Amino acid sequence: MWDSRRLEAGDVVIGDGGFVFALEKRGYVKAGPWTPEAAAEHPEAVRQLHREFLRAGSNVMQTFTFYASDDKLENRGNVLQFTGQQINEAACDLAREVAGEGDALVAGGVSQTPSYLSCKSEDEVKAVFKKQMDVFVKKNVDFLIAEYFEHVEEAEWAVHVLKMSGKPVATSLCIGPDGDLNGVSPGDCAVRLVKAGAQIVGVNCHFDPMTCVKTVKLMKEGVERAGLKAHYMVQPLAYHTPDCNRQGFIDLPEFPFALEPRVVTRWDVQKYAREAYNAGIRYIGGCCGFEPYHIRAVAEELAPERGFLPAASEKHGMWGSGLDMHTKPWVRARARRDYWEKLKPASGRPLCPSISTPDSWGVTKGHADLMQQKEATSEEQLKQLFKKAEAND
Amino acid sequence: MWDSRRLEAGDVVIGDGGFVFALEKRGYVKAGPWTPEAAAEHPEAVRQLHREFLRAGSNVMQTFTFYASDDKLENRGNVLQFTGQQINEAACDLAREVAGEGDALVAGGVSQTPSYLSCKSEDEVKAVFKKQMDVFVKKNVDFLIAEYFEHVEEAEWAVHVLKMSGKPVATSLCIGPDGDLNGVSPGDCAVRLVKAGAQIVGVNCHFDPMTCVKTVKLMKEGVERAGLKAHYMVQPLAYHTPDCNRQGFIDLPEFPFALEPRVVTRWDVQKYAREAYNAGIRYIGGCCGFEPYHIRAVAEELAPERGFLPAASEKHGMWGSGLDMHTKPWVRARARRDYWEKLKPASGRPLCPSISTPDSWGVTKGHADLMQQKEATSEEQLKQLFKKAEAND
Amino acid sequence: MWDSRRLEAGDVVIGDGGFVFALEKRGYVKAGPWTPEAAAEHPEAVRQLHREFLRAGSNVMQTFTFYASDDKLENRGNVLQFTGQQINEAACDLAREVAGEGDALVAGGVSQTPSYLSCKSEDEVKAVFKKQMDVFVKKNVDFLIAEYFEHVEEAEWAVHVLKMSGKPVATSLCIGPDGDLNGVSPGDCAVRLVKAGAQIVGVNCHFDPMTCVKTVKLMKEGVERAGLKAHYMVQPLAYHTPDCNRQGFIDLPEFPFALEPRVVTRWDVQKYAREAYNAGIRYIGGCCGFEPYHIRAVAEELAPERGFLPAASEKHGMWGSGLDMHTKPWVRARARRDYWEKLKPASGRPLCPSISTPDSWGVTKGHADLMQQKEATSEEQLKQLFKKAEAND
Amino acid sequence: MWDSRRLEAGDVVIGDGGFVFALEKRGYVKAGPWTPEAAAEHPEAVRQLHREFLRAGSNVMQTFTFYASDDKLENRGNVLQFTGQQINEAACDLAREVAGEGDALVAGGVSQTPSYLSCKSEDEVKAVFKKQMDVFVKKNVDFLIAEYFEHVEEAEWAVHVLKMSGKPVATSLCIGPDGDLNGVSPGDCAVRLVKAGAQIVGVNCHFDPMTCVKTVKLMKEGVERAGLKAHYMVQPLAYHTPDCNRQGFIDLPEFPFALEPRVVTRWDVQKYAREAYNAGIRYIGGCCGFEPYHIRAVAEELAPERGFLPAASEKHGMWGSGLDMHTKPWVRARARRDYWEKLKPASGRPLCPSISTPDSWGVTKGHADLMQQKEATSEEQLKQLFKKAEAND
Repeated sequence: MWDSRRLEAGDVVIGDGGFVFALEKRGYVKAGPWTPEAAAEHPEAVRQLHREFLRAGSNVMQTFTFYASDDKLENRGNVLQFTGQQINEAACDLAREVAGEGDALVAGGVSQTPSYLSCKSEDEVKAVFKKQMDVFVKKNVDFLIAEYFEHVEEAEWAVHVLKMSGKPVATSLCIGPDGDLNGVSPGDCAVRLVKAGAQIVGVNCHFDPMTCVKTVKLMKEGVERAGLKAHYMVQPLAYHTPDCNRQGFIDLPEFPFALEPRVVTRWDVQKYAREAYNAGIRYIGGCCGFEPYHIRAVAEELAPERGFLPAASEKHGMWGSGLDMHTKPWVRARARRDYWEKLKPASGRPLCPSISTPDSWGVTKGHADLMQQKEATSEEQLKQLFKKAEAND
Repeated sequence: MWDSRRLEAGDVVIGDGGFVFALEKRGYVKAGPWTPEAAAEHPEAVRQLHREFLRAGSNVMQTFTFYASDDKLENRGNVLQFTGQQINEAACDLAREVAGEGDALVAGGVSQTPSYLSCKSEDEVKAVFKKQMDVFVKKNVDFLIAEYFEHVEEAEWAVHVLKMSGKPVATSLCIGPDGDLNGVSPGDCAVRLVKAGAQIVGVNCHFDPMTCVKTVKLMKEGVERAGLKAHYMVQPLAYHTPDCNRQGFIDLPEFPFALEPRVVTRWDVQKYAREAYNAGIRYIGGCCGFEPYHIRAVAEELAPERGFLPAASEKHGMWGSGLDMHTKPWVRARARRDYWEKLKPASGRPLCPSISTPDSWGVTKGHADLMQQKEATSEEQLKQLFKKAEAND
Repeated sequence: MWDSRRLEAGDVVIGDGGFVFALEKRGYVKAGPWTPEAAAEHPEAVRQLHREFLRAGSNVMQTFTFYASDDKLENRGNVLQFTGQQINEAACDLAREVAGEGDALVAGGVSQTPSYLSCKSEDEVKAVFKKQMDVFVKKNVDFLIAEYFEHVEEAEWAVHVLKMSGKPVATSLCIGPDGDLNGVSPGDCAVRLVKAGAQIVGVNCHFDPMTCVKTVKLMKEGVERAGLKAHYMVQPLAYHTPDCNRQGFIDLPEFPFALEPRVVTRWDVQKYAREAYNAGIRYIGGCCGFEPYHIRAVAEELAPERGFLPAASEKHGMWGSGLDMHTKPWVRARARRDYWEKLKPASGRPLCPSISTPDSWGVTKGHADLMQQKEATSEEQLKQLFKKAEAND
Repeated sequence: MWDSRRLEAGDVVIGDGGFVFALEKRGYVKAGPWTPEAAAEHPEAVRQLHREFLRAGSNVMQTFTFYASDDKLENRGNVLQFTGQQINEAACDLAREVAGEGDALVAGGVSQTPSYLSCKSEDEVKAVFKKQMDVFVKKNVDFLIAEYFEHVEEAEWAVHVLKMSGKPVATSLCIGPDGDLNGVSPGDCAVRLVKAGAQIVGVNCHFDPMTCVKTVKLMKEGVERAGLKAHYMVQPLAYHTPDCNRQGFIDLPEFPFALEPRVVTRWDVQKYAREAYNAGIRYIGGCCGFEPYHIRAVAEELAPERGFLPAASEKHGMWGSGLDMHTKPWVRARARRDYWEKLKPASGRPLCPSISTPDSWGVTKGHADLMQQKEATSEEQLKQLFKKAEAND
C-alpha cells in the first residue's frame, strides 16, 4: 500500500512520462499500432527510458504494457514474434529492475481494449484484463493502473477485475471537461470509479496539462459532492491543445506526426505541476510527449514540498541558472526565473497558423474521399466499418 | 579511407544527430557548460543514444567529445570526477562498440576551444587539439571531424593538427550565409579549409536545415571557383530559425530552454535531405535538436539512392502509412504523403508570436541590466570581460 | 410601421455600420469621449457617411446620436460649442436628408447613459431618454432604437420611455453569450425587453459577428420558450474577438487604437450575413469597425433573398470578379468565390501573437500601477472611484 | 515653386493617402480597373476624402487622376459615361477647391500606362502623358507628380513630358530595394530621374513603410554618389508586407480583398514618419491603405518639426491620451506613449498564418489552372498573352 500511504500522508507522487511517443522517436514503437513489443524485443531501450524517468524524479515505474492486451496484439497481425504473455512479463521485469535502482514502486498497467470497442460482452472484456493482471500478480507489482479509457463503463470493468488482486488500484480516463464519449461528466465518472473500488482517480493523455487539471478538479468536486473520498492523479499530454474537441488530440490534423510545435517547455510544466498541486492532486506525471526533462520539471517545481531534488537535477540549473557563466551578457541575462516565466516562445513558423480546426466525422476531406472511394457503401455500412475499425484504434 | 571512398563513389553518408541537446533532455548533460562527461559517468545513456542513431541509419558514430578539450573541461570547474583523457577515451570506446553493431565508422571529434577565444597563441590552441587527437589515434578511430567553429582560422589550425594523424579529416563551421564571425564568406572559408587539408567541408549547428544547405552551396561554389575539389557535409539544427542573425540560434530569446515550438518535423527533414542531396552534398546528418527519428527521416528520404531502409524503419510506416488501419476515417485519411507534405502545423500557442527578435550586444535589456550593475565599468572593460567570458561559452 | 411590416413579411432589413469608429478615422470623432458633435460641427462628413451606407445597401439611416444624451455630453466638458438639442436635431436632419435619396427609413437612437451607471434614480434616467426622444418625435423619425446597453434593466427603462412615442421600438444590448453585466442570460434579457414592449430585440457592438449571432440565437430561444414573439436584430463589431471575456473588446489590450489586424474582410461578412439569416435574424447590420464595404457585403450575400444588388455594387465585382482581366494569371486566378472563401489571410506581423489576454480588474499592470499611485486608497475607495468613473465611459 | 521652396528650406511636406483603396471601401472605385471616374461621377465623395486628408495635415491635394490616361480608361470598356478629359478636369477642380480650404497646393498626377506595358513607342507613350498634362496646365496646378512606375524608363519619359510644363516635377516609382522590374537598382533609377529633370524623387505603393524608406535611402545614396542633388519623397502602403517579393503586394495572396490584417496602426505610422524624417526624406505621405488618421499620425509625429498640429488633432489625444478619463483603470492605463509603442497587436485570427508565400509566375495553382485551360497554348503564346494582358493591369 505504499502509494496510498504516501498519498494518505499528503506526499507528492511523481508519475513517469509517455513511453509510446518517446520510444517512437527513438525507433522502437510504431505509430499507428502503438504496441509495446519493445519490452521484449529491445529491452535495453525500454530499460534506459525507465532509468531516465527515475533519475528525473519519478516514483512510479509503470510497466510498458500499454495496448498489450492479447486482443490488441493479435489485431496487429503476425508481425510480432513475442506472445502477449512474454511482452507483459518482460515489461514487469524491466520496471522492477529499474525501480530497484531508486525510490520507486512498480505499477502494472492495463488500458482500453478493442474487445470493448467492438461490443464484446462484459465477461469477454474482463477476461482480457484478467489475463494481464495475472502476469502482474505473478510478477508481484506494487499496485495497478487502469488508464486511457474513453468510456467510464470499461474502466469500471477494469477496476472490478484489478481489485481482485488485492492491490491498490488507480484509474485514469482519457477525457476532458466534457466527459467521456457517452457524455458522462467527469464528476459522475469519478464517482462511479471510486464506487467501483479505485483508490486513485484522474485522467491521462488526450488533452494538454491545464485542461487535464481542470478535468480532475471536476472529478474531485463530484467525488466530494457525493460524500466520497479518493486520491487524484493527472498525467496529461506534453502538447498545447487549445483547439481540441471532445476527442482530444487524435482529431487534430497534426496527430501524430506534426505535433512538434505544440510541445510544452519545462517552464510550462512547472506551471502545470504547481497548478495540479494547488488543486489538491498529489499523483502528478505525464503521458504522450512527456520526456524525462519534463518529469524533472515536475520534480523541481515540487522540490520545496518534497524536500529534495531528483538525481537528474545535477545536470540542470534551476530556472536557467546554468547560463550564468555564458559569454554574452544577453545570454547571461536569461539565467533567471522571471525571464523564462514570461517568455512567449516563437514557433519559427510564420507560414503556419497557431491553432487548427480538428477533423471530425462528416466534415473532413478525409471522410469525403472515403465516401467517394466507397460509392456503393451506404452510410449504415460505413458506420459498421467504423465500429469494426474502432477495435484497431 | 572508408568515408572518402564512399563519398568518392557518390554514396550517401548519413551522420548522427545532436548529442548534447538529446542528452540534456534525458538528464545527462547540463545546459550552459554543455560538456560530455556522461561518456564516462553514464556510459549506458550515451551507448543507447549511439545505438538509436545507428538503427535510424547513421553511418558515422561520432565520439561524444564535444567541448571535451582540457581547457574547456577545466574551465567548468571541479564538478567533474573524470579527467579529459578518461572522457575522451570512454567516448571512443562507446562509439566503437556501437559501430560494431552495424555498418558505421567511428569519427573522433574536436570543436571550438576557449583557448582560441581567449586569444591564446596558435601553438597553445594546437596543443589542445593535439591532446584530443592523441586519444583518437590511440583508439584508432576511422576518421576525424573538426566541427563547430565560428572562426575559420581556428578550424584551419584544427585541420593542421588532425592531418598529422594521417586519417581523413572533415571540417564544419557553425556559420550561415554571411560567413564566419570575422566576416570571411562561406566560399572563402571552404577554400581555406580545403587548402589546409580537409577532404570534407561544410557546416553544422547554429542555423536551420535550409539555411545550412544554402551555406554549404556557397562553400561548394567557392571551392569550385577556386578550381579545387572537396566533399561536402551538412549537420544543421532541428529548429526553424528564420529570425536568426549572424550568431545563429544562440541569440534567439528561446535559446536554449524554450526552443520546443521550433522543432522540425520528420517531413521537414525529408525535404531538407532531398534539398541537400540535390545540392551535391553527400554527408548529411544533424546537430542540436536532431533526434533519432529525424535521422531516420534522412535515411527514408534517401532510401531510393541508398537502396535500403534503416533498421528503425521496421517501426515506421513511410509517409504516415502506419495510420491506414486507424478507426476513424479522418485519421486514416492522413496516411498519405500529400497530406503530410502540405500540412502547416499549428503551434497550439495563439498567445505567442511566430518569430522573435534576436538579442544582441548593446540593444538588449540583458545588456542594459549588466551596464547598470557595473556602473563603474567602462565600455572598454566590458569588452575585455566579454572577450574573457567568451572562453566560457 | 414600415420596418415591422417589412420584417413581418420576412423581408431583410439591412442596418448601417459604425459611425463613431469610421468618423474617428476620418478625423471627426474623438476616441475616449466618442461623442457625436460632428453632426452639428461637420455635417458634410456625417452626411457623406450616411450616403455611403445607403449606397452600400442600408435600409436604415440611424441618427448619429450615440452618446448624445445631455448627461454624457456635459460630462465631456465645455469643449463643445453645441447643445445636446442642437446635436440631436442636426443628426435627425442629416439622416432624413440622406434617407430621402434612397429606400431607407430614419431611426432615432439612444444609448447607455452615465446617469444609470452612476446609480441615478429610474426617473432621472428616464428623463434623460425622454429628452432625446422628444427631438426624435419632433423630427418625426420612423422608428426608434435603444442600443448599447450593458444592463438589461436600463434598456427596459429606455423601452418604457420610447414606447410613449407610439413608434416601433428596437432594442439591442452590447452583451455576449454570457449575458449582461449582472449575469442575466441573453434569453432572459430578450424576454424582459419584449415584455417591456420592444418589437425588435438583439445585440450590437462588443463582440465579433459570429459571437453576436450566437447571442441573438440564445435570445430567440428564450423568447420562443416564453411563448412570445419578436423580430431579431444583430449589429456586431467588424473585429475578430475570439479572446474576449464578458466585457467584450473594451478589455482587449488593442482597444481602441490597435484593432487593425482584427478587421474582418468582406468575405467574413458574407459568411456572417448568411449565418445571421439562417438563424432567423432579419435586421442585419454592423457596429464599430463596419465600413460601407462591409455593409455592401451583407447586401451582396443577401441579394438572392432581397432580389437586387445595392447601388455600390456597380463598383464591385462579386467574389472578386473585378480581377478577371488582370495582367497576371495568378492574380486572375483570384477572381473566384472558392479562392476568397478558403483564404486564410496573413497578418504580415510575425512578431505579434494571434490572440491577446484581455485586461481586467485586479490582474493588470494598469491596475497595479494605479494601486501604487494611490497607496493610501483602500480597495473600497477604489471601487467608489470605479463606480464614479463608470459614468465617463 | 512652393513645394521646392519649402523643401529647400528643409520644411516637411505631408502628402495625402490612398484614394483608390479608400474610395473602393466607400463604394466609389472598382477594384480591378481601379479607375478614378468618381471624380466626375461622385464629386462629393472625392471632395470629402480630399478634405479629410487636408484636415489630417496634408499639404498636397493630389488630383484624383490615377489610371486616368485615355489608354487606360478606354481599355476598361464602355462602362464609363465620362471622357478622360472630363474626369481629369473634374479631379483638378476638386483638388483646387479643397486646397483653398487650407494650406495646401495642388499636384497633377500621372501614372504608369498600358501603352508602355504593351510596348508602344516612346512617342505614343509620351502623347498619353501629354494629354493629361495639358489639362493640368489648363487648370494651373501647382506642381506635377509622375508616380507608380515599375520601369524607370517610362518614368523618365513621363518626366520629359511633364518638364515641358515649366512646373516642378516629382517622380516616384513603385519599386523596392531590389530595383525596377528590369533590375535597375534604386540608386541608378534615382540618378536617371534626377538627370531627366525631376526635382523630387522617391517611391510609392507596393511595399510597406519601412521597406519604402529603405528604398528611398538607396536612391539618396545613389544620387549623392553621383554628385547630384534632389529632394526625396515616400508614399508607402499602409500594409505590413514582410513577405513580398520584387513585385510587391500585388503578388500576395491577400491582394486586394483580404489585406485587412496587414493594415498598419497609427503608432506604426509614427515610427515610419520618424524613420523617414531621420533618413532625410522631407515629402512624407502614403499610398494604398493610408486613411486620414494615418496621415494625421504623420503630422502628429512631425509636429515638433512643423511647429503645429493638424486640424483633425482636435479630435485626437496624442498617444492615446483620450482614454485618460475612462471608467476602467486598465483602460486608463493605456493612455500613454509607452503602452502603444510596445504593444504587439494580436490578429484575432489564430487559424491564419502570419505571413504568406507570394504567388508568382510558374509556381502558382492559378498558373497551373490556366495552363490546363489552354492546353493548346504554348508557353510562348502564354507569354504573349501575359505581355498583352499587362496593359490591363
